[in-house]
Amino acid sequence: MSAEQQAREQQLTERVVTSFENTPDPRLKEVTQALTRHLHAFIREVRLTEAEWQQAIAFLTATGHLTDDRRQEFILLSDVFGASMQTVTVNNEAYRDATEATVLGPFFVADSPEIPPGGDIAGEAPGQPCWVEGTVTDTDGKPVPGARIEVWEADDDGFYDVQYDDDRTAARGHLFSGPDGSYRFWAIVPTPYPIPHDGPVGTLLTATGRSPLRASHLHFMVEAEGLRTLVTHIFVRGDKLLDSDSVFGVRDSLIKDFVPHPPGTPTPDGRDLGDRPWTRVRFDIVLAPAPGVPAGAQAPDRR
Amino acid sequence: MSAEQQAREQQLTERVVTSFENTPDPRLKEVTQALTRHLHAFIREVRLTEAEWQQAIAFLTATGHLTDDRRQEFILLSDVFGASMQTVTVNNEAYRDATEATVLGPFFVADSPEIPPGGDIAGEAPGQPCWVEGTVTDTDGKPVPGARIEVWEADDDGFYDVQYDDDRTAARGHLFSGPDGSYRFWAIVPTPYPIPHDGPVGTLLTATGRSPLRASHLHFMVEAEGLRTLVTHIFVRGDKLLDSDSVFGVRDSLIKDFVPHPPGTPTPDGRDLGDRPWTRVRFDIVLAPAPGVPAGAQAPDRR
Ligand SMILES: [Fe+2]
Ligand SMILES: [Fe+2]
Repeated sequence: MSAEQQAREQQLTERVVTSFENTPDPRLKEVTQALTRHLHAFIREVRLTEAEWQQAIAFLTATGHLTDDRRQEFILLSDVFGASMQTVTVNNEAYRDATEATVLGPFFVADSPEIPPGGDIAGEAPGQPCWVEGTVTDTDGKPVPGARIEVWEADDDGFYDVQYDDDRTAARGHLFSGPDGSYRFWAIVPTPYPIPHDGPVGTLLTATGRSPLRASHLHFMVEAEGLRTLVTHIFVRGDKLLDSDSVFGVRDSLIKDFVPHPPGTPTPDGRDLGDRPWTRVRFDIVLAPAPGVPAGAQAPDRR
Repeated sequence: MSAEQQAREQQLTERVVTSFENTPDPRLKEVTQALTRHLHAFIREVRLTEAEWQQAIAFLTATGHLTDDRRQEFILLSDVFGASMQTVTVNNEAYRDATEATVLGPFFVADSPEIPPGGDIAGEAPGQPCWVEGTVTDTDGKPVPGARIEVWEADDDGFYDVQYDDDRTAARGHLFSGPDGSYRFWAIVPTPYPIPHDGPVGTLLTATGRSPLRASHLHFMVEAEGLRTLVTHIFVRGDKLLDSDSVFGVRDSLIKDFVPHPPGTPTPDGRDLGDRPWTRVRFDIVLAPAPGVPAGAQAPDRR
């Protein structure tokens, strides 16, 4: 490329950056200027053709037209480019041995039913019973009693309760950690499911040889006073989809041993499952301090 | 930032890049992988918050919902970030003294009326008469006869003909260069107009202290066999908007002297304008070789 051409491209980028110079809000200025630089760097690097630019406009237009109150194709687009997961990663910085965060996903619902310790979130959801247990501690290893543990997952058919037309609540609930920070409940063994792929994002996945499937996972959201709220999943060791999760939610530290037990094996709480097999998994949760809260100063009144 | 945090962010980006590795089409692979890298670099650099990510999703959603067959808010978004102009720049590489390209804009219409040499494109469009003249040559300085010169512009009220509800055709037309490559026609003196700014893009412009106005300009599209089609504008030297054109279409080389003449001054072609003032501008057009055509080999049969 000629020096003149380089100068033209560079000068244009700088003109656009300069146009945001009088933005009253300093953060908006920072974000728009950085977006300009990265967007232009992309166009220049790939030498985007005018036909490709037209395709991009048409893709965004189709994405916008599919999006409504029930379907958020832009979030899916962000998800499959790992932009959602990168945003989560940036906002949940590594802190000692705090449990890693991952994406919230579209199926969280507020006001889930509370279950007692050892209760069952499955409801009518089909699936193999799964005993989930662990402790909630802070990064000093101190137990966190009274942590709110929200869990939700797809059923054996790959659907969340809210994806059914009836008003069922199933495979969703919340409970609280005990005085020693421990928790336990019955759920179902998670299974894979596809993200919606009948729109532009699905077309993109097909064109790039990618699968819409998410690795099997159980969602957690854990909240405790003075500690950073943790939104995460646990994944199933051995799942063939761990390396191709369509939204890049997998972190090695979140892959857990889901240990199968044959029918008739005694359950941890003596529950009689008849001739059904069941599975057991342990997930010890470590919460970082809340942003701005000095370590060791969290919620002493709740210990 | 800790080494662990950096590793997590970097590893995530690489996972997404790797996910596109099996894309059958090599160009799609290149573009999606580069887009991933630049998008993640942006998120990491600005430390995008989850609230900002939500705002971005909402902004794109609103942009999609406003877009229809008559209103293309995504193109406007591309325009105000200079992405449209950067794409034009990348696809019209500097070549010797070839005239610089700029954006096509949304108001080009095929099948405009043909006018004879020295004819008037204004039609019923209000505006001060403007005599436009020049030559079309190639980069060896050879005249290009028979070049199709398409011109269009907003009227004195800042509107293109197609923005009116009637079916008028005005301030739009095409003509051909003569045997010596020269051309001349009457138009009207261009005036500023705003891009549509009652949507999300307008909100962004307001929030960043920018104007929706475009610097005054006259659109050109020049086509000749064996030569690169030129889509450009000319701008008015002295226009206060030259440094703040909302879509970054201005190139210094495209700013021309629009010389005002008082009422009664004889016109170049003897046209009697009565008591109206008029303006004169010269625009010499130099066309690069068409991509893949060796210089000097263009359309010898049309010379
Ligand atoms: Fe999920
Ligand atoms: Fe225009």
